[in-house]
Amino acid sequence: MADNKIFFDNTSTTKVDPRVLKDMLPYFSEHYGNPSSLHDLGDIAHGALDNARSQVASLVGANDEEIYFTSCGTESNNLALWGLARAAKKKGNHIITSVIEHQSIINPLKDMKKEGWEITHIGVDSNGSVDPDQIRKAVTDDTVLISIMHANNEVGTIQFIKEISEITKQNEILFHSDGVATAGIIPVNMSELGVDAYSLSSQQMYGPKGAAALYLKKGVRLKPSLLGGIQERGRRAGTENIPAIVGFGRACGIAKDELDKNAKYISSIRDKLAEGIIKNIDNVKLNGHPTRKIPGSAHTSFEFIEGESILLMLNMEGIFAASGSSCSSQALKSSQVLTEMGLSTTMAQGSISFSLGKYNTEDEVGRTIRVLPPIIERLRKMSPLFKE
Amino acid sequence: MADNKIFFDNTSTTKVDPRVLKDMLPYFSEHYGNPSSLHDLGDIAHGALDNARSQVASLVGANDEEIYFTSCGTESNNLALWGLARAAKKKGNHIITSVIEHQSIINPLKDMKKEGWEITHIGVDSNGSVDPDQIRKAVTDDTVLISIMHANNEVGTIQFIKEISEITKQNEILFHSDGVATAGIIPVNMSELGVDAYSLSSQQMYGPKGAAALYLKKGVRLKPSLLGGIQERGRRAGTENIPAIVGFGRACGIAKDELDKNAKYISSIRDKLAEGIIKNIDNVKLNGHPTRKIPGSAHTSFEFIEGESILLMLNMEGIFAASGSSCSSQALKSSQVLTEMGLSTTMAQGSISFSLGKYNTEDEVGRTIRVLPPIIERLRKMSPLFKE
Repeated sequence: MADNKIFFDNTSTTKVDPRVLKDMLPYFSEHYGNPSSLHDLGDIAHGALDNARSQVASLVGANDEEIYFTSCGTESNNLALWGLARAAKKKGNHIITSVIEHQSIINPLKDMKKEGWEITHIGVDSNGSVDPDQIRKAVTDDTVLISIMHANNEVGTIQFIKEISEITKQNEILFHSDGVATAGIIPVNMSELGVDAYSLSSQQMYGPKGAAALYLKKGVRLKPSLLGGIQERGRRAGTENIPAIVGFGRACGIAKDELDKNAKYISSIRDKLAEGIIKNIDNVKLNGHPTRKIPGSAHTSFEFIEGESILLMLNMEGIFAASGSSCSSQALKSSQVLTEMGLSTTMAQGSISFSLGKYNTEDEVGRTIRVLPPIIERLRKMSPLFKE
Repeated sequence: MADNKIFFDNTSTTKVDPRVLKDMLPYFSEHYGNPSSLHDLGDIAHGALDNARSQVASLVGANDEEIYFTSCGTESNNLALWGLARAAKKKGNHIITSVIEHQSIINPLKDMKKEGWEITHIGVDSNGSVDPDQIRKAVTDDTVLISIMHANNEVGTIQFIKEISEITKQNEILFHSDGVATAGIIPVNMSELGVDAYSLSSQQMYGPKGAAALYLKKGVRLKPSLLGGIQERGRRAGTENIPAIVGFGRACGIAKDELDKNAKYISSIRDKLAEGIIKNIDNVKLNGHPTRKIPGSAHTSFEFIEGESILLMLNMEGIFAASGSSCSSQALKSSQVLTEMGLSTTMAQGSISFSLGKYNTEDEVGRTIRVLPPIIERLRKMSPLFKE
């Protein structure tokens, strides 16, 4: 990417840390063995797999054998839902989730509903927070699984996972949390959070695409989705993507060492961006929880105009952001998350997710604050909804 | 890998072609966008995805929109079985397959049997060939799907796919073939083969791990397994593994250009290896079809000894081969494929799959022929089964 471009789309995916790529390189054309093979080259691959598993486990305070590699966050989320629910279906048929989950939770649950599962969707307040008390009230004798994301990928609000896990423990309900937006970004510890399953993704923490993981607490039963060989102790068949897994492991190692420093830095430049927007542009609203949110998130609604138009004009200035989640942006639908938070249509439609990362700079924030007001002004002048 | 090591395990996985890796590199830390993002960096990733799709389609004579990317061959096989069967279940509940399929076909079918599907397994002859006539006889009014692999990954026998597709067309049955051992290795053309679905894998054709594809003939209905975003036109949710897909595309491009040359070269050194073994060692048997087999395959049974012991001693000499398929080798079970072909236990147990590839040399074959006889002799001297 050219140096003068500004990438504010870090929730969608991140640049691979050059240290990560360096670790991956030998596993393409030198140590290219299949970890299932019974020879030295297989052993090297198997050793790399074990090492990466330890690095991932260490980031989230898990045991190595509680980490199962998958190909992406969507696969981890799908596997958790289908796998936990199917393994527990003799106990009941009720699942609780929220209205602001990622589509890789929402859409499988739609399918499961057709198969006879009963799904309760808990709403959110204006900050995008799920109230644990509402979950408690929704629990029935048939509830076998609760899935609530750790932080929302659009507005960045961090949920009360620990509080929810107290409810699931009391009621012997399985608890999965989608940690794609949080693992490697904020401190995450499996036993502190008290979850039974947790999804992690490499490509949102400066690791490569093609690797992700599902944490599965020791003793928790899961019916696998991919069947074939005995890879991942029978929980996920298919040859392991060794280079990507090695990169994911290293990314976890780096995240563990540098997480506090990065979080502090990223939230400081994020705050400068947010303050600059508020100061220089009228009729804007910062979304998500004011304090309980991931460090890079500056989700902003610019009233009376269309998010896609803002994106387009920002793109012409070399500034890359998002409207809605990356998985739904191609569908050009307005964000369900914002509607659920109670935003008016004129606000919700003009929303931009600026998600900052460790490679962003204060200069980039400064340039964005200079460039944004004339863009918004120009779009509002063209908007039939806007009256000065 | 050190230069003096010999990699004869190319059916398990292959070294990434350096030209492939070179093409992949910009997509980690430079063009790292998410193809679903609405900005230049997303567009670059999306363009790379389209380009790779064309390269894959071109290798197998398909249209671009008939190629769906997945994460590995196992996922492609699982998706084909579940996806085609579930979409067709109103028509019937009978599936036909063979006894020598890969575990990523065998194991999902075991699961489907529990769900009420009726599965017929067709046997093989001593060459490992499935007789199309036996398939014809197994067809019932309830048959909705047939899955027969293009070439067996252990003994290399190429199946009569075209002949089987005539049967499926006459009877309006869906036909899937697992082409993981063939795509990029022998000429493969979707309309000539007449299949409705076909699995391809990158890591068996000098491309990276983490990318594979399912060819799905235009108009064929498939229920997706992974649900979430609208990637791969709704057939496979999850952020696309762009670097691996770019590499897979390039690997297909190279395979297309160099397939004939490579196949000729690889089969010539494979034949030298086979002849050398036959000439220098008694009580051996070359398995698979004598002519209808993939170019690199030299699967050999050394009577009266254990395959794992041979592997171990070959490994000490720096020669890397396999016993059974890589997905089952860690399970240390004797190969079902060989048993189904009618091999005696004393033969089947002492089996080694030498699978040669484009990076192997005549020198390596010569060294293997020199090293192998004393290894076999030594092991036979220790074997209670062997009498000179």
